[in-house]
Amino acid sequence: MRTFPSPVRVAIIGASGYSGEELVRLLLGHPHAELVAVTSRQYAGQTVAQIFPKFASHPKARALRFSDPNVGVLATQADVVFLALPHGVAAEFAVPLLAAGCTVIDLSADFRLRSAAVYQEFYAHEHPAPDLLAKAVYGLPEVYRAQIRESQLIASPGCYPTSILLPVVPLLRAGLIKPTGIIADSMSGVSGAGRKAELDYLFCECNESVRAYGLPKHRHLSEIEQELSLAAGEAVTLQFTPHLIPVNRGIHTTLYLAPAKHFSSAEEAAELNAQIAACYRAAYADEPFVRVLEGKALPDTKNITGTNTLELAWRLDVRTGRLLVLSAEDNIVKGASGQAVQSLNILCGWAETSGLL
Amino acid sequence: MRTFPSPVRVAIIGASGYSGEELVRLLLGHPHAELVAVTSRQYAGQTVAQIFPKFASHPKARALRFSDPNVGVLATQADVVFLALPHGVAAEFAVPLLAAGCTVIDLSADFRLRSAAVYQEFYAHEHPAPDLLAKAVYGLPEVYRAQIRESQLIASPGCYPTSILLPVVPLLRAGLIKPTGIIADSMSGVSGAGRKAELDYLFCECNESVRAYGLPKHRHLSEIEQELSLAAGEAVTLQFTPHLIPVNRGIHTTLYLAPAKHFSSAEEAAELNAQIAACYRAAYADEPFVRVLEGKALPDTKNITGTNTLELAWRLDVRTGRLLVLSAEDNIVKGASGQAVQSLNILCGWAETSGLL
Amino acid sequence: MRTFPSPVRVAIIGASGYSGEELVRLLLGHPHAELVAVTSRQYAGQTVAQIFPKFASHPKARALRFSDPNVGVLATQADVVFLALPHGVAAEFAVPLLAAGCTVIDLSADFRLRSAAVYQEFYAHEHPAPDLLAKAVYGLPEVYRAQIRESQLIASPGCYPTSILLPVVPLLRAGLIKPTGIIADSMSGVSGAGRKAELDYLFCECNESVRAYGLPKHRHLSEIEQELSLAAGEAVTLQFTPHLIPVNRGIHTTLYLAPAKHFSSAEEAAELNAQIAACYRAAYADEPFVRVLEGKALPDTKNITGTNTLELAWRLDVRTGRLLVLSAEDNIVKGASGQAVQSLNILCGWAETSGLL
Amino acid sequence: MRTFPSPVRVAIIGASGYSGEELVRLLLGHPHAELVAVTSRQYAGQTVAQIFPKFASHPKARALRFSDPNVGVLATQADVVFLALPHGVAAEFAVPLLAAGCTVIDLSADFRLRSAAVYQEFYAHEHPAPDLLAKAVYGLPEVYRAQIRESQLIASPGCYPTSILLPVVPLLRAGLIKPTGIIADSMSGVSGAGRKAELDYLFCECNESVRAYGLPKHRHLSEIEQELSLAAGEAVTLQFTPHLIPVNRGIHTTLYLAPAKHFSSAEEAAELNAQIAACYRAAYADEPFVRVLEGKALPDTKNITGTNTLELAWRLDVRTGRLLVLSAEDNIVKGASGQAVQSLNILCGWAETSGLL
Repeated sequence: MRTFPSPVRVAIIGASGYSGEELVRLLLGHPHAELVAVTSRQYAGQTVAQIFPKFASHPKARALRFSDPNVGVLATQADVVFLALPHGVAAEFAVPLLAAGCTVIDLSADFRLRSAAVYQEFYAHEHPAPDLLAKAVYGLPEVYRAQIRESQLIASPGCYPTSILLPVVPLLRAGLIKPTGIIADSMSGVSGAGRKAELDYLFCECNESVRAYGLPKHRHLSEIEQELSLAAGEAVTLQFTPHLIPVNRGIHTTLYLAPAKHFSSAEEAAELNAQIAACYRAAYADEPFVRVLEGKALPDTKNITGTNTLELAWRLDVRTGRLLVLSAEDNIVKGASGQAVQSLNILCGWAETSGLL
Repeated sequence: MRTFPSPVRVAIIGASGYSGEELVRLLLGHPHAELVAVTSRQYAGQTVAQIFPKFASHPKARALRFSDPNVGVLATQADVVFLALPHGVAAEFAVPLLAAGCTVIDLSADFRLRSAAVYQEFYAHEHPAPDLLAKAVYGLPEVYRAQIRESQLIASPGCYPTSILLPVVPLLRAGLIKPTGIIADSMSGVSGAGRKAELDYLFCECNESVRAYGLPKHRHLSEIEQELSLAAGEAVTLQFTPHLIPVNRGIHTTLYLAPAKHFSSAEEAAELNAQIAACYRAAYADEPFVRVLEGKALPDTKNITGTNTLELAWRLDVRTGRLLVLSAEDNIVKGASGQAVQSLNILCGWAETSGLL
Repeated sequence: MRTFPSPVRVAIIGASGYSGEELVRLLLGHPHAELVAVTSRQYAGQTVAQIFPKFASHPKARALRFSDPNVGVLATQADVVFLALPHGVAAEFAVPLLAAGCTVIDLSADFRLRSAAVYQEFYAHEHPAPDLLAKAVYGLPEVYRAQIRESQLIASPGCYPTSILLPVVPLLRAGLIKPTGIIADSMSGVSGAGRKAELDYLFCECNESVRAYGLPKHRHLSEIEQELSLAAGEAVTLQFTPHLIPVNRGIHTTLYLAPAKHFSSAEEAAELNAQIAACYRAAYADEPFVRVLEGKALPDTKNITGTNTLELAWRLDVRTGRLLVLSAEDNIVKGASGQAVQSLNILCGWAETSGLL
Repeated sequence: MRTFPSPVRVAIIGASGYSGEELVRLLLGHPHAELVAVTSRQYAGQTVAQIFPKFASHPKARALRFSDPNVGVLATQADVVFLALPHGVAAEFAVPLLAAGCTVIDLSADFRLRSAAVYQEFYAHEHPAPDLLAKAVYGLPEVYRAQIRESQLIASPGCYPTSILLPVVPLLRAGLIKPTGIIADSMSGVSGAGRKAELDYLFCECNESVRAYGLPKHRHLSEIEQELSLAAGEAVTLQFTPHLIPVNRGIHTTLYLAPAKHFSSAEEAAELNAQIAACYRAAYADEPFVRVLEGKALPDTKNITGTNTLELAWRLDVRTGRLLVLSAEDNIVKGASGQAVQSLNILCGWAETSGLL
């Protein structure tokens, strides 16, 4: 187990997008981390407060300036470097940073897959650093906490994958559902598209609109299927439909699952219900960032916006024999930057909720 | 075939909700109908323009006053009466209006089901006028046009049912999909909840929020399953999940269907795709209010808001073997008032698009 | 008075922005105009229905293709050409079109000002065709109806100017308010910024946000002050503050005015109130697109969205001695494309509401 | 100077509205305060987590139950009691709580005015406890910090007043603006209307809408004019126009002010500008919750949502001779509950930012 200096010096490469901005917010307020560098080619020379006025009351935001990303300099400044970059680009920075001894927490998709071939299938270019895939850990703390603790390269999960894996993995591991026929129907807020100047994400194109997109083979499928397959112990193929809805933040996922054991009466449903409740309690009763709703309430993105919490609830439908599980998370926090900071906390041996409550 | 006077005199009972308001809009602008009465206990005595300022430029809106609902009076004033009332209440008005010779177009659920027992199961009270069920036609013009033409009692479909039936019925009739395992995942704008002073539908409770509700046995299931079963020729059980999203208008439905014939190659998919295209063309090429998207475009509620058009598109997923069909409609127009006016047009022998373009 | 063929052939140059799209909508549905050409460099070769799926149910939208803008061709195809182009560019097209005998209705700012020097002051480049300024009429029908009827070059007003001029001009002409100290505080929906791929107008940058912009010297000031000065018979300087709010459509303007005659009692207020009411009735009682609210109601953009109507109301404040006038309009309809079609109707001698109700 | 136990025990009466909910959030996370009681007649017996699922991860939210408001019990439980009640009702609770020795921080309007007659004029009922008015301090920390420190009854300011007073008071005190002719044009998010089941605040009535309301004599005028008059040393009459816009949170105010000294050249403007900058620096450079923007940036509610910060900026308009000041705040935080907690911090001698960053 490594030890880190106190405070740990952290840097963010690519800090001008929505995930980068949220990392800035979380790390400015973190009790044990010191934000020493933020990079952005576009904003180099300007202070964090100038680009993100909402942080202007924080003295460090007024002092810290965006710089051009220079790996040599960053490697001397920071112990841990967050990469909030497009896939493909992230790997280019990760390679020299790792070589220089930094720990890397990557928010892109570059190190989430174990197979370079699957990466190439879904991302349409050769993997830029296939040798590193074996070194990386999939940074979903509720599943890989121990490995995160020991890793130098953490591939923080995607937003949709988080909203699907946390509800499904415990059920698969417990054998309570079949690994076949899983459907995930998701809705995401517009921040999921990133801070990109594209017509499709203009206010007037998104407001008073709802639409599916990316059908039927969204890139996130690759990491979701990888992790579901690992949990099931066999290959899992997922049906996944993302939709865009007019909110800034939040992902809601409705999952259609087939219980391993058929139920057709209220009694059988009650019995299965108790098993599911027990399964989720075993998995999440002690997790600070997963909230299992057991009463009448259903997940609502407004209850988790701005937090690192994922809410989930389930319903058995005795008419159809299906199990529905619903989840809600903030796509930029638990779905991206909050989860990355959670990994930082684990890595450094701090309380896992540090800077996240 | 009945004949109607020219212009046809129409009345709306319960004109103060969102569906009633939209009926007012459509009928004020209708070339062949004359709006002679609108009722509302709450607003009796006030003009339409006072309650709905948006119509104030229309002379009739400044002249016509809301009245208390009085069946005796209405029966002498109107040839066709629209009921925009809660279920249970609608039937109370329908009975004497029919007896007085009026034609009734009911936007509630009271006459949509063929079975009084199913009504009681889903609506939790005895059907108020079971003898009338056999007289009523389910007012989905694309399916029941001929019967609408001859009926004195038209039960206009619900908003969710319309968004599900128009995509699925032709596929079931053509035997292209299995009648089992159908899943409908829907998102609705807040107007679907009606103009009701309830905390759950306040701006701050809906904005920046998305949530499922009414799980797992929504009332609309009863009419959807009835109509799917008729199309399939066997009993169909549906999985249906409604979600509330922060838009005023619009329903988007994503349907997960199992093709009758297995496909696992690009060739088989192409063949099946051609069959589906042919099926939808046969069903809808001549329909003025169903738009089948055959290119890359996917349905988007903003493209149909304020219109009587339902958009649909489909995708075959060769990875999962499933057929996805997606639809978008305006829940208050094609999902309620526009569809009711479409029935009026059929009933009176006018061009079906009268007042709807 | 000119005569036009029937139907009049119309074209739109620059039909891919929000104003252009709304012109397409209005002209596709116009009873006396035939849309013969729409141009867009970006979309040349694609049908209107492909770019604007919402119009796909209209046969002409499926048939008509965007073309590259070619003045020579357009001049032979169209009797009237709408220019929905950026300022500066519009004039380049207007010059040859006018020379070829077309009538031009320009939605840009290029011909709204009578003075080329003022144009240069506010638009920061030399006027591209100063000789045409004297030929142009400011296309505000409620003020310049007779001149529009006779003009070959109509400069359709800006969205903010319309929301300010219609409330203020009659009061200035009647001498009921002082021409000094006028303040206009406006809020606009995001469509006012155009369909431009800029970060500032992304959904997440506008939603849950309100902000002023363009202070203190917005370009629209030039045309507003020109027209207020003409109405007052002396130079008027305006204080104008635009704000951006998260709605698609709509401008709301609150005007702070000083009555010419001091009032300090309820009696004096009542007398002045009657004079204002009489003034507005004289100006607008017969206008189809100005709705003066005289009861308790205040303008609300949701009551005019999608229509060519401007709503206005006023309040006298006996505590401060001021007159407040409030207006609401759809910035893309009465504030742009609807008003341009209103001018077309006047020009061609049709009912002024043709295609606009 | 009083001393308080550590931790200070606090209670909230009327904790089910938006301000109450925000108080719960802030006090659950406060390092020095212990939330011992929350009352709500409607929710008595239910836990905080049941009513506000968003707080469910906090152990105290799962343990603490709403109770009926019982002054006798509360007085023994709590050192400081927050009242988040309608005006008129708040005073009924304040009287016995003060008598029992509690310190009261009242978020209603009941103790904001120094004159019972003005209260009656604006609130249309006799003041319920006029004797207490002299004991109360107006809880605007940037103006009354010293008095808050010593008071047993703190009348926390309204949301609109805060957005107007913080920008204007320093200018009036410094004699930089005239006390006459002040205009405040404000826009508020819908949470300002409270969590009330009224049709006007339904999602569909507010979304895609903007409207003024409460003209011309809003209740908040009374406290704003009181405080402006105290700052000016003479009676000030304000023109104030509130508008409702479709955001959850945030108030934006645009102020139109007349500089005491006329300016008509760029040089005079620059000189005046320097004086204003100096005035604001003197007032706010050391204030943790007022952010004066001196560059090109203008206030934007999205930059302060969820925080206790008020942003302000100003512009001199040499064309009109006016000074414009613009401010943005979160109406529920700096405009209500955050400001009340700021007063608590002052009262107890803690760092003023405790629990507010």
